[in-house]
Amino acid sequence: MQNFVFHNPTKVIFGTNTISKIGKEIEKFGLKKVLLLAGGGSIKKNGVYDQVVASLKENHIEWIEFWGVRPNPVLSHANEGIRIVRENNIEGILAVGGGSVIDEAKCIAAGFYLDNLWQAFEREVEIEKALPIFTVLTISATCSEMDPYAVLTNEIENKKWNIGGFALYPKVSIIDPSIQFTLPWEQTVYGAIDALSHIMEFYFQAKGEEPTSSIDEALILNIFRSIDTLQKNPKDYYARASLSWSAVLALNGISGSGLYGGDWACHTIEHGISAIHPEVAHGAGLAVVFPAWIKYIHTLNEPQFLRWARNIFGKENVESAVLSLKEKYRSWGAPVSLRDLNISKQEIPLIAETVWKVSKIRTIGAIKELDYNDIYEILNIAY
Amino acid sequence: MQNFVFHNPTKVIFGTNTISKIGKEIEKFGLKKVLLLAGGGSIKKNGVYDQVVASLKENHIEWIEFWGVRPNPVLSHANEGIRIVRENNIEGILAVGGGSVIDEAKCIAAGFYLDNLWQAFEREVEIEKALPIFTVLTISATCSEMDPYAVLTNEIENKKWNIGGFALYPKVSIIDPSIQFTLPWEQTVYGAIDALSHIMEFYFQAKGEEPTSSIDEALILNIFRSIDTLQKNPKDYYARASLSWSAVLALNGISGSGLYGGDWACHTIEHGISAIHPEVAHGAGLAVVFPAWIKYIHTLNEPQFLRWARNIFGKENVESAVLSLKEKYRSWGAPVSLRDLNISKQEIPLIAETVWKVSKIRTIGAIKELDYNDIYEILNIAY
Repeated sequence: MQNFVFHNPTKVIFGTNTISKIGKEIEKFGLKKVLLLAGGGSIKKNGVYDQVVASLKENHIEWIEFWGVRPNPVLSHANEGIRIVRENNIEGILAVGGGSVIDEAKCIAAGFYLDNLWQAFEREVEIEKALPIFTVLTISATCSEMDPYAVLTNEIENKKWNIGGFALYPKVSIIDPSIQFTLPWEQTVYGAIDALSHIMEFYFQAKGEEPTSSIDEALILNIFRSIDTLQKNPKDYYARASLSWSAVLALNGISGSGLYGGDWACHTIEHGISAIHPEVAHGAGLAVVFPAWIKYIHTLNEPQFLRWARNIFGKENVESAVLSLKEKYRSWGAPVSLRDLNISKQEIPLIAETVWKVSKIRTIGAIKELDYNDIYEILNIAY
Repeated sequence: MQNFVFHNPTKVIFGTNTISKIGKEIEKFGLKKVLLLAGGGSIKKNGVYDQVVASLKENHIEWIEFWGVRPNPVLSHANEGIRIVRENNIEGILAVGGGSVIDEAKCIAAGFYLDNLWQAFEREVEIEKALPIFTVLTISATCSEMDPYAVLTNEIENKKWNIGGFALYPKVSIIDPSIQFTLPWEQTVYGAIDALSHIMEFYFQAKGEEPTSSIDEALILNIFRSIDTLQKNPKDYYARASLSWSAVLALNGISGSGLYGGDWACHTIEHGISAIHPEVAHGAGLAVVFPAWIKYIHTLNEPQFLRWARNIFGKENVESAVLSLKEKYRSWGAPVSLRDLNISKQEIPLIAETVWKVSKIRTIGAIKELDYNDIYEILNIAY
């Protein structure tokens, strides 16, 4: 088992009727005024917005609203948020939404202290501090509610890159799984596939390390079961709760304890796809990339891939398990090929080049450090 | 799934050659002088003491040593520690040892701010603050290294009781599993049984909640495998590491997420036994009490006990699984009856009365709130 540090200071308040606690939690940090960051307006329809502002009012916390975070959040909008925060003496960010909203909240919180936010993505400056971040989660997927990472798209340079830093852990995150009852089906599924992919990024790099390998398998199987249940009844609280907490454990440090930091090639490749095609949901892109990557890479760490084939799908070889994974995703209505995403074969070189840009600042993949040709091949298999 | 809060701020540094980091971690908190708290001297034999003081020196941190924490730590020794801290302007506590040393460190850290430490155990005062606590763990068992609890024996009143509070989370804990290579076999086993018992306290109260029930099963099976391996080779790093991290997850919040807070009757009953018989290791007492309690209580939450019988032992009824559990413990050389502990049948009423004292401040058990007769019966089954 590899040495590791586990240090996750986020306070998670989990369960039904917990959103009303957010104001009090912000007040405990002594804040008087926050930026309420949100997406396209779904929180006004499902009652979350009303619960949040009632709690802020009750605890005498002022807020300024900033709407319009996109599903793949963009640099220009984050920069606009930083400007609003600076001009209004705002002391913290309250993200009300899914991973995109929380990621942009982190960018604004860190960017407040930087001359140029994007320099942090280019690794030209380090993130040493950030305004305090609070979240009310509306889609279980990214674990941004309990991790120190954020992904943002620089829409001028076609780069979908990430940042990380201890200051980016939210102070308090509220997860009420019942507010996800009314999510569109695709969002539930793509969220689950994102969480599954986080676990797999860590798991496939392992060499059987315990207890983490077994915990990861338990999480994968539970996410499968939750989605199968929600496909029949989207208002099954038990399944929503199991999915929500599994998605947290997928990237809050537990699923990777003692492993090797994760491979992350699939995430990097997917970010290349959705940088070019922002209409592609992150989870949809991962559903396409992961099976192709497993086919391409599995012989390099065969025992762990075989363990996965056996313990998750009861299969005796990896190729059969990949088919089972694709079948599972397809049964949920998810795409499993670039073709399913309406991406043409001609676009593959452009996507590969977009992915390859990130090699300027870091390697791509760990089980194998991928070069341009590897990426090109994986995209071809994914076609 | 029940609502819950997960908030565990302890930084865990896990792995080989990590003890040298302790001085730097203390220095980051701005401390200049700590109490180095320890037990009977084993840390001088296994090299841990030398590594710790070298790290303190390197980071210019003064320390005063206070030795002699007993395996079941006692109030008089903790009070002496509080006096030393007050008289020497000590700013934090560094526990170097197992759960007993860490528990007493927490008592000293909290007691520094109290007129009378024992009042916190009697629930007459709340623990609102504590000196910062740092730990270097030498036995994986209690998870005191990443939890907010402490157990202490009031040797005048024959009470082995507990306290808890957010201020009692250690700031930083260092877990180097390799320093446990030279532990006496019984200590390894009793530590593992303590960890298993923590998981079972939560698990048996559950009603199949996921992902926690599956994670708990993964942890139980991994602890079994680790001990089986260590019985053959006590220097198997992989097994030590799996055991150490499983013991942390057993009580750092993960094994109980979304469950109902745990039953804790077995722990309370065991504390009654070792209050009268301080020579009985906590893990040994739990090995005796748990099987008896399962036999007495299982029909009140049968589906979860049956799930345990099936998923852990492949048995179709609980009674058979209890036999398997006792067999497993016996194969490790652990006691499975009061007789094995050299406790006579005549002592059962006194032990039951000692357990019963705690009913003054809280109920005993949750699946069933036990009365005096229940406790008496369980002890008889355990005989």
